[in-house]
Amino acid sequence: ENRLPGFATHQVGVAGAVLDEASGKVLVVQDKNKTKNAWKFPGGLSNLGEDIGATAVREVFEETGVRSEFQSLLSVRQQHKHPGAFGMSDMYLICRLRPLSHAIHFCTQECLRCEWIGLAELAQTDATTPITSRIAKLLLYGYREGFDKIDLSVEEMPAVYSGLFYQLYHRELPTSYKQP
Amino acid sequence: ENRLPGFATHQVGVAGAVLDEASGKVLVVQDKNKTKNAWKFPGGLSNLGEDIGATAVREVFEETGVRSEFQSLLSVRQQHKHPGAFGMSDMYLICRLRPLSHAIHFCTQECLRCEWIGLAELAQTDATTPITSRIAKLLLYGYREGFDKIDLSVEEMPAVYSGLFYQLYHRELPTSYKQP
Repeated sequence: ENRLPGFATHQVGVAGAVLDEASGKVLVVQDKNKTKNAWKFPGGLSNLGEDIGATAVREVFEETGVRSEFQSLLSVRQQHKHPGAFGMSDMYLICRLRPLSHAIHFCTQECLRCEWIGLAELAQTDATTPITSRIAKLLLYGYREGFDKIDLSVEEMPAVYSGLFYQLYHRELPTSYKQP
Repeated sequence: ENRLPGFATHQVGVAGAVLDEASGKVLVVQDKNKTKNAWKFPGGLSNLGEDIGATAVREVFEETGVRSEFQSLLSVRQQHKHPGAFGMSDMYLICRLRPLSHAIHFCTQECLRCEWIGLAELAQTDATTPITSRIAKLLLYGYREGFDKIDLSVEEMPAVYSGLFYQLYHRELPTSYKQP
């Protein structure tokens, strides 16, 4: 880890895939002002200093009115020359969330539509983006065969020199391996 | 996915855990100019426009002289107010790499020492950082029980509007789920 000073090269966006396990439905939106009306997971850009999970929960609430809590990290996307990033790159993270409320009050400035739709339906429809379709299939796999197949769990750990903490995401490690 | 323009808030660093499967040894360095001489995986900051895997391979070569190739993404760390990031945040990704050469010619400007050490030894020693120790344990779990337990695989996918491509990392999805 070469810690020469650098500069910020990435904006960070986070999407929340809110899955209601009882019904098998997931919360999706269609953006306003897009040429193709495709179902997507709600999400948006992280504020400076905001944790990944906090961004997902906040953006889901702002766009849809649904309250949720962080469960796991599912996927990371890196894209260079991202439109709207002024020549910078984009790191986009997709989280699995659990709903704490279900009533939709969506933001009419950002969204055209907002619905709970069946996960199997979202995994099969053409009315979505490639990344949403892929993550819907991944989520369906986890829903049917266990979320441990798809999840990265998070842990807060101490930084060595600064006294600050950071959040570390990786596959769940069996307890027998966690011992020193 | 709220695509209002944002600004870059994160620097991105990448470390490479180069594991020689035949010997069970992993490539580690000790930084110069640090108060605690702890074994770490070589790594450093991404250049603008550089893919995660490319940064890992480049930084490993620059620091150690060892050539390697990308295998998988293992872990993501998010840290705010990172020292050396000028108030910005730091996204640090750890990749699993496969060695293509073994002879060490380490950079004496950056490193004090560089060695191939046993993975089980790295997982147990106190002469390391918390994150290196944790990832060594994760890697040991994968080495013993199958890398499919710990890996995120990568795929290049087309962006909808821009015509560009992006790289998407997530758990391997069984073929039966990948079909539309």
